[in-house]
Amino acid sequence: MRMYDLIMKKRNGFALDQEEIAFMITEYTAGRIPDYQMSAMMMAIYFQGMTEEETAVLTMAMANSGEMLDLSGIEGIKVDKHSTGGVGDKTSIALTPMVAACGIKIAKMSGKGLGHTGGTIDKLESFAGFSTEITSEHFISQVNRIGVSIMGQTLDLAPADKKLYALRDVTATVDNMSLIASSIMSKKLAAGADAIILDVKTGSGAFMKKEEDAFALAKEMVKLGKHAGRKTTAIVSDMDQPLGFAVGNALEVKEAIETLKGNGPKDFTELCMTLGAHMLIAGEKAENMEQARKMLKEVIEDGRALAKLAEFVEAQGGDREFVYQPSKLPQAALVEEILSEQEGYIEKITCDEIGICSLILGGGRETKESQIDLAVGFILHKKVGDHVKVGEALATIHANDRDKLNTAKERFLKAYTFCKQPVPSGKLIKGIIS
Amino acid sequence: MRMYDLIMKKRNGFALDQEEIAFMITEYTAGRIPDYQMSAMMMAIYFQGMTEEETAVLTMAMANSGEMLDLSGIEGIKVDKHSTGGVGDKTSIALTPMVAACGIKIAKMSGKGLGHTGGTIDKLESFAGFSTEITSEHFISQVNRIGVSIMGQTLDLAPADKKLYALRDVTATVDNMSLIASSIMSKKLAAGADAIILDVKTGSGAFMKKEEDAFALAKEMVKLGKHAGRKTTAIVSDMDQPLGFAVGNALEVKEAIETLKGNGPKDFTELCMTLGAHMLIAGEKAENMEQARKMLKEVIEDGRALAKLAEFVEAQGGDREFVYQPSKLPQAALVEEILSEQEGYIEKITCDEIGICSLILGGGRETKESQIDLAVGFILHKKVGDHVKVGEALATIHANDRDKLNTAKERFLKAYTFCKQPVPSGKLIKGIIS
Repeated sequence: MRMYDLIMKKRNGFALDQEEIAFMITEYTAGRIPDYQMSAMMMAIYFQGMTEEETAVLTMAMANSGEMLDLSGIEGIKVDKHSTGGVGDKTSIALTPMVAACGIKIAKMSGKGLGHTGGTIDKLESFAGFSTEITSEHFISQVNRIGVSIMGQTLDLAPADKKLYALRDVTATVDNMSLIASSIMSKKLAAGADAIILDVKTGSGAFMKKEEDAFALAKEMVKLGKHAGRKTTAIVSDMDQPLGFAVGNALEVKEAIETLKGNGPKDFTELCMTLGAHMLIAGEKAENMEQARKMLKEVIEDGRALAKLAEFVEAQGGDREFVYQPSKLPQAALVEEILSEQEGYIEKITCDEIGICSLILGGGRETKESQIDLAVGFILHKKVGDHVKVGEALATIHANDRDKLNTAKERFLKAYTFCKQPVPSGKLIKGIIS
Repeated sequence: MRMYDLIMKKRNGFALDQEEIAFMITEYTAGRIPDYQMSAMMMAIYFQGMTEEETAVLTMAMANSGEMLDLSGIEGIKVDKHSTGGVGDKTSIALTPMVAACGIKIAKMSGKGLGHTGGTIDKLESFAGFSTEITSEHFISQVNRIGVSIMGQTLDLAPADKKLYALRDVTATVDNMSLIASSIMSKKLAAGADAIILDVKTGSGAFMKKEEDAFALAKEMVKLGKHAGRKTTAIVSDMDQPLGFAVGNALEVKEAIETLKGNGPKDFTELCMTLGAHMLIAGEKAENMEQARKMLKEVIEDGRALAKLAEFVEAQGGDREFVYQPSKLPQAALVEEILSEQEGYIEKITCDEIGICSLILGGGRETKESQIDLAVGFILHKKVGDHVKVGEALATIHANDRDKLNTAKERFLKAYTFCKQPVPSGKLIKGIIS
């Protein structure tokens, strides 16, 4: 078999068969197919697309390209949750203890991501002493004991996807639905969970700006998950403005803690309830949404969800007291209000711009080597649909550097658009695919 | 400027501007744009095409990417001829002395090609002692003195095209009309002639199998030549069966010599007359086709064309006596007739198969390092439309190895298709674009 012939076949609009896709992925991962052939193939796929069958085969080939996380040592149904990412997305911090308190087993392997704010691991490191550098034995036994653990990425999950994504990223071949879906799902499948709940974001702060694209991706991923024998449900949710009020690592952790106490922002709480309810159903702890939501409400009200977070933090070396005294979390030196220069109803918040402002403050990683400043970020006081007067605070900015504060503040103000008439706030949950 | 953005622009269907194409070609040639980005770009161009303007700019950028052959030291109009290649295409060997005898200046720089039979240089090396390793001074003064010289490729003409073609060749991005045309024309423009006559072959032995593709390529190249200020004419000619009767280096040289004596095959002679007439007109030695053909006929009849070949061979160190005693040319040890196993009219000769048979005998290069056996090949006795009986000779095979002879012979027989009814032979000259 020759890669040349496969490129030609795809270029001419034919579907590749199982053997051909397996060959392509195995040989590429092993370095025996050069990047320049693979990038030509990716561009041909961009134009010719892939069939459902091809996408499923590609996903499995990438999932099988390296090690697979073996969760067989954990009793019960393991449920994973994945978000396509957005601004202010602290969902895992609150959601994980909520569902674990309801009896769902969460065993996550996670890498440190690039982005506007840090990933879940970075956020968790706001708890002094917290570490994801634990052994597999510790990991498995912790999940069996308390229902939740997050381990740093010690295994090489889906290396084919890693290599392929890096190539697509520099050859303008990222935005093809089949390729995006197979990239996400190959990693999720290699991560070993029995059920997968996907949070597909849409809007100005999301990878999928258009709602129809988010739905298409959600459908594609659900199909792939089911094809691989995993229970899979996708929630399409709004990311046209930041989720909740907090943007920035420690600030988001505080907001997650407040949410576990029942004092969280309405939109963020609702998203956690929706995702959590689907996780409880997938994990067979609840029979329907009503029952699931009731269970989640209970663990918040009786303090079990917050206690689960404390238990989880402590089990991985962190200081559980931070959970009860969030003022111990990293604090920024400069805390100032950002005052509105305009009066009106907030029509739009360009969400990815808020993300960039967080990055400017030092809250995210520009390269893999970047150090994150966990303390910095924003607490929004006004969101889409709110009325603001000149001089009223739009947000509070938390910074550790005066220049960065000034740059970020200026840009932050430009991310808001005002109008004279009241604006309806958008729907948070756009749809559910299962 | 970033290559990533250019790939995205082309992928999304927009035309690249002059500055962008120049950047892409300069940086790629210098090794600062990696192959994997360029192959993605080539695949995007395959799908989105290039405008006339883009193609012209790309051609000039590649023509200017390295050294240019400076022919200013040669008086008069320099006329170049280029064939897209085929089986039994010995045109340059006969045509060059014919037009030079009529006063046209031919200054060619030539590389050794890959193919079923050798290139013009290989064929000329059938004359013992002939060399293309001459200095630029020798080259220029020889053209001024006798009107014709061929120099080995000492200059790096259009290196961008060389690098890009090698990449396209392994990424299934060769067959795009704009890319093919710009590849050929960039080299021709860098080779410095004032006028260019193109022989675009079509049929089973040609790169362009379909006549409409050959016409499209011809039109594209003529446009590019004119855009660059060169007189350019393209002849679309038949390559659905081998040209003339001889296939193989020394055998083709013998046939070219016979043609210069007026005894050449009808089709080959006619092609030389047509191309030659257009060269005389482009070089302003004749005012119209009638006059041009008359001049060419004269130099054949009075022996000046043959004498010019002898003069040319001698000027580059070859033995001029070979021209008058072609039996001195390399001879194969095994010469046998290939007898027809069928009776009927020859309906078709799969032309590229005949080329592969020549390659099997050792008459062509599979890799750049291959040694060519100049003596081997075929003399066809029957062509399309001829009637053959069982046991009648279809061709004579010339070989130096019994096993290769047997393999080639078996394959040769399969290249012929017979039918019961008489078949009209195809038209040689399909059209002229100027």
